[in-house]
Amino acid sequence: MATVEWDAAAGGVRLIDQTRLPLEEAYVVCRTADEVARAIREMVVRGAPAIGAAAAYGTALAAREGRLAEGAALIRAARPTARDLFWAVELVERAADPLAEAHRIARESIEACRAMGRLGAALLPKGARVVTICNTGALATVDYGTALGVLRAAHELGGEPFVYAMETRPRAQGARLTTWELRRLGIPHRLLADSAAGLLLQRGMVDAAISGADRVCANGDVVNKVGTYPLALLCREHGVPFYVAAPSSTLDRTTRDGASVVIEERAPEEVTTFAPPGTDAWNPAFDVTPARLVAALITERGVLRGAIE
Amino acid sequence: MATVEWDAAAGGVRLIDQTRLPLEEAYVVCRTADEVARAIREMVVRGAPAIGAAAAYGTALAAREGRLAEGAALIRAARPTARDLFWAVELVERAADPLAEAHRIARESIEACRAMGRLGAALLPKGARVVTICNTGALATVDYGTALGVLRAAHELGGEPFVYAMETRPRAQGARLTTWELRRLGIPHRLLADSAAGLLLQRGMVDAAISGADRVCANGDVVNKVGTYPLALLCREHGVPFYVAAPSSTLDRTTRDGASVVIEERAPEEVTTFAPPGTDAWNPAFDVTPARLVAALITERGVLRGAIE
Repeated sequence: MATVEWDAAAGGVRLIDQTRLPLEEAYVVCRTADEVARAIREMVVRGAPAIGAAAAYGTALAAREGRLAEGAALIRAARPTARDLFWAVELVERAADPLAEAHRIARESIEACRAMGRLGAALLPKGARVVTICNTGALATVDYGTALGVLRAAHELGGEPFVYAMETRPRAQGARLTTWELRRLGIPHRLLADSAAGLLLQRGMVDAAISGADRVCANGDVVNKVGTYPLALLCREHGVPFYVAAPSSTLDRTTRDGASVVIEERAPEEVTTFAPPGTDAWNPAFDVTPARLVAALITERGVLRGAIE
Repeated sequence: MATVEWDAAAGGVRLIDQTRLPLEEAYVVCRTADEVARAIREMVVRGAPAIGAAAAYGTALAAREGRLAEGAALIRAARPTARDLFWAVELVERAADPLAEAHRIARESIEACRAMGRLGAALLPKGARVVTICNTGALATVDYGTALGVLRAAHELGGEPFVYAMETRPRAQGARLTTWELRRLGIPHRLLADSAAGLLLQRGMVDAAISGADRVCANGDVVNKVGTYPLALLCREHGVPFYVAAPSSTLDRTTRDGASVVIEERAPEEVTTFAPPGTDAWNPAFDVTPARLVAALITERGVLRGAIE
């Protein structure tokens, strides 16, 4: 399984269609910047590092189409919150060889995940019971994963982690994608409703929590999947460390704090699954975890505590 | 619409089938204690005061069947957490006229809800934006509601409340039932994923939170729908009052604190809606909100702050 991969024969970037998992393992090939922008917007590809790599290839496709500025603008407009998207588009825009630059971004993203995995695994005690939110595994990255990469590394190193996967409504990435990855990896796990995280912490059932990030601000505030902030607050209340695993491509030194970040609001229909027809819903995709609630930020360059400035 | 009502012609208790709402408004009549116990277990009837009234009629049916002790035991075993169930069974068991006692319990439950509504509405500022969890309306009671009854009273008294209804996974009582009731009442509202409560509070979008209760312990700890505790913690963090509306039938002076309460764990299948087949899930139905997080407990007898002993 490759989440984001260049398909030389097809002349485009090949993505696993994450809207169809876990029921179906289907792939789409995007041959134009327009198609990449749509795949990002519709969450065929999601997860900050995976979005970054897809955006890199999309920008390289725009260059090949001879409309670099226009294509890059389209991709930038696809989703507002994940830092990696803007970072990758800019790198490819400035590169002499856009496709080679996209390849480099994808390759280095995998290396960063493996490095984060090793560094993060060292923070977990043997047999750690760890709660995580959303999907931050191979599917959220080019390969291996960020927060789930840490749990994967712990598993590979014999640390015997046990994972509590939060469902992550409304799109249920935890229920649909994280459980699917954990099963393939042979890591023992249990799913829970997002609202059950309170009792989980209250009962002392976990030793740590770990999430990925869509953007880490200069002061260390973490913008991530909606529900991350309540989880971090519960962790502080119960003395459990809350870790964030994010590659340096997610760190945004130009944004002072979480209050300055645009939080994407998605369609009400994602939330009204069980509601009477016509019900209105508020559907923010992210929230802000203040830096003071983060025990450590795990990047490929090392483990940071406090602001990243 | 009557949630729990004696049907003299049918010789049984008539319940609106809450598992089929909002798609279908269907009713079932339970003519034996066994049928009532099953309706409670399968959540055809749910919500602590509604369970209490159904249990009262179920016990009266057991008396009519000439197997009071056995029928009462069956009903007691249907669900472990809601205080009202045990309270109602005991009252009917001891009554000279079991059916008359069940009628009294149902009638007084409605009066208690109306009284709570008036008392609670007085705590809300004009135009209050209020977040609530689960369903605590007419459907959760014999009529009118507890927490939703407070919002209904505020609306009827011209207070113009705006309600944020949490979805309340896994069974989505907020999405299915609360939005359905709010629309019928003409109270403006918006649905949100449970996980979005963090950003809701973070952004200062609500003036108060209000929930019902399944059991209020002697020290004031509130056992309620899973997800209530994280909401209350968010409220404290952001200086927003968290209110609980519960009739005195939910107050349990014999249970010292929340740690002593049996938290029902329900079938994993309720949580695995979106997960790959075979996924295991942890599905607690309730959590414990410590008394110190509750700004006030609204009962039909008055508004209490602190322990109820």
